[in-house]
Amino acid sequence: MTEIRFDPAQGCLRLIRPDGTADAYPYLWLRDNDPAGFHPQTGERSFDLLSVPPDLAPQTASVADGMLHLFWPDGAETRVALDWLAAHRPGHRRPDPADVAPHVWTADLTPAGIPRAAACDLLTDDAALLDWIVAVKRVGLALVTGLADDREAGLDVARRVGFLRETNFGRTFEVMSKPDPNNLAYTADALPLHTDLPNQDLPPGMQFLHCLANEAEGGGSVFADGFALAEALANAAPDAADALADIAIPFRFHDSEFDIRSRKPVLVRDRDGRLREVCYNAHIADIADMGLDEMTRFYPAYRRFMALTRDPAFRLELKLAAGEMVVFDNRRVLHGRSAFDPATGRRHLRGAYVDRGEWDSRLRILTAALNRPAAA
Amino acid sequence: MTEIRFDPAQGCLRLIRPDGTADAYPYLWLRDNDPAGFHPQTGERSFDLLSVPPDLAPQTASVADGMLHLFWPDGAETRVALDWLAAHRPGHRRPDPADVAPHVWTADLTPAGIPRAAACDLLTDDAALLDWIVAVKRVGLALVTGLADDREAGLDVARRVGFLRETNFGRTFEVMSKPDPNNLAYTADALPLHTDLPNQDLPPGMQFLHCLANEAEGGGSVFADGFALAEALANAAPDAADALADIAIPFRFHDSEFDIRSRKPVLVRDRDGRLREVCYNAHIADIADMGLDEMTRFYPAYRRFMALTRDPAFRLELKLAAGEMVVFDNRRVLHGRSAFDPATGRRHLRGAYVDRGEWDSRLRILTAALNRPAAA
Repeated sequence: MTEIRFDPAQGCLRLIRPDGTADAYPYLWLRDNDPAGFHPQTGERSFDLLSVPPDLAPQTASVADGMLHLFWPDGAETRVALDWLAAHRPGHRRPDPADVAPHVWTADLTPAGIPRAAACDLLTDDAALLDWIVAVKRVGLALVTGLADDREAGLDVARRVGFLRETNFGRTFEVMSKPDPNNLAYTADALPLHTDLPNQDLPPGMQFLHCLANEAEGGGSVFADGFALAEALANAAPDAADALADIAIPFRFHDSEFDIRSRKPVLVRDRDGRLREVCYNAHIADIADMGLDEMTRFYPAYRRFMALTRDPAFRLELKLAAGEMVVFDNRRVLHGRSAFDPATGRRHLRGAYVDRGEWDSRLRILTAALNRPAAA
Repeated sequence: MTEIRFDPAQGCLRLIRPDGTADAYPYLWLRDNDPAGFHPQTGERSFDLLSVPPDLAPQTASVADGMLHLFWPDGAETRVALDWLAAHRPGHRRPDPADVAPHVWTADLTPAGIPRAAACDLLTDDAALLDWIVAVKRVGLALVTGLADDREAGLDVARRVGFLRETNFGRTFEVMSKPDPNNLAYTADALPLHTDLPNQDLPPGMQFLHCLANEAEGGGSVFADGFALAEALANAAPDAADALADIAIPFRFHDSEFDIRSRKPVLVRDRDGRLREVCYNAHIADIADMGLDEMTRFYPAYRRFMALTRDPAFRLELKLAAGEMVVFDNRRVLHGRSAFDPATGRRHLRGAYVDRGEWDSRLRILTAALNRPAAA
């Protein structure tokens, strides 16, 4: 039998289970998060936390039939299942299917090891789509094969996950050699490894590159796992990794229509110190304006990271064929290409982005719809 | 005459001006940021920092005709104007026209004091558009008047600034009472002050609400400057403000198609400790899962902030008329409405967002095109 103890000093209720384990629930939390206080249609919280006093405490509390019953001084009642309380106890991070642990990779992955799926399966089979969505989260890189020779074929797959992220380059972009390019991607030059658009407040998430033609000499694709590079740097030179996480640098893209700027560290860590994102693009890194001390700390660290991006141990190379699409997490995996000779044949990739938010949302919705347990 | 001193220990060149002031330029910085190392068409950096050794130093340096000339061991030369060097010296934050100091406001602003512009001016006059773009940055709230009775009229103004930010609610959304609402905005209920979509990785920036009809009883709009609320909290209870900046809480929107989650503090500060954003939405704050200590710190601080949102001293109320549009920084200014009675008349606002990145970009491009000095 679950035992209830009031703890007025802490303003919380303690539930002590028969096995002696206990959880504490602040009175205000119990009232604010009572499932009955959420709107029946929208699922949003309707309860107004300021409708109760700060020193709110239940008048009585009892447990019966696996439910906790509380009576509040204003006449309200709370009835909530002990199972629900255990799953939602303070200090317990509820499982999120989108919390997929990254599988960090080096050149050992090889092109053959890249997760892949057939376009027809992704378009028609929710279970196949979910497996692939999870694989892209885990590895940060995947291939789609068997795309129709149709400019919309890659986008149809992307839109199975979510709407496309618009940027100053449009909702889709054509990677090919163009006159008057406003971006190195639109030349025939080699592109060293980089992430796209760290000059944006939110750099685009998952990138789709559908290969419509790749007949030119050269034009091979290169990828590297930014998490692996950061890990290698942190192991070899923790101070260098800390410098790249501490020091924000200016990024800027500028043409006649747009002037988009953002300051970011190369290695973006979350509040728990965990690496969340890599922002590496030497082309649109603006003229560095840190103070002399930070600059002295920054340059050697940045050069070490750059050198890792050139190390074959981390680089995975492949040449996309027409009808293939590569998909990668642009906030984690660096991409690049070798130069190509436009005189020897056509090279045309059609690109688009779906942000991490939409990606994770589809992952959660499909996990629930297919009744799958959360991945780990 | 500017004097040059080599500082091999620090790896930098010191330029000492005739008035005795001096600036230091790291050798690597001088080479990496040489304007000649940027692509002539795209403006992107083409120079490869790893093409030079870490201990790079110029062989000779001289000043003539207002230019610094450097000769490097690999035969390269750098010629750069002293004026350019002074403007780009390390430790000097170059002016950005989009760094507009906020004018923080309370109820004293009054509806009459809200910056306003006529739609026809914004659509046809770049100078009027720029003034208004700067005003929205400064005040966080503005009105547009004289819109045509046309569903596209508000969007035409928004698109003068930038493309629309898509969300799970679409690129545009209709704020009106609907059957089966998936959001409280789509009911006739009162909406307490809030910011939209803190459950997103990047909450939407500038919000446009074009009033197409507002004939129902009730349905007045309310706004409050989140920066003023945060400032008042920090003055009255600095610990409470710190708690709301330190403790990230879970936000979640969930319907049959989307499940979008993000963890954020209510007060988002940048790396310099400056308030950058307010994320306040009690409806989509998910069930709090912090540990007991954080929760004990959180609830009193959160309630203090909530109480400020109810304080008439901070609230600005107005009733939009058909043909008016309100525009506000959703990451700063809270908005809400009073309940309305759909039986008494139609109320219909058409909404859209343009993100801060596009806003600032247009501000910079127009400032340059109109040859304006940066605002302060």
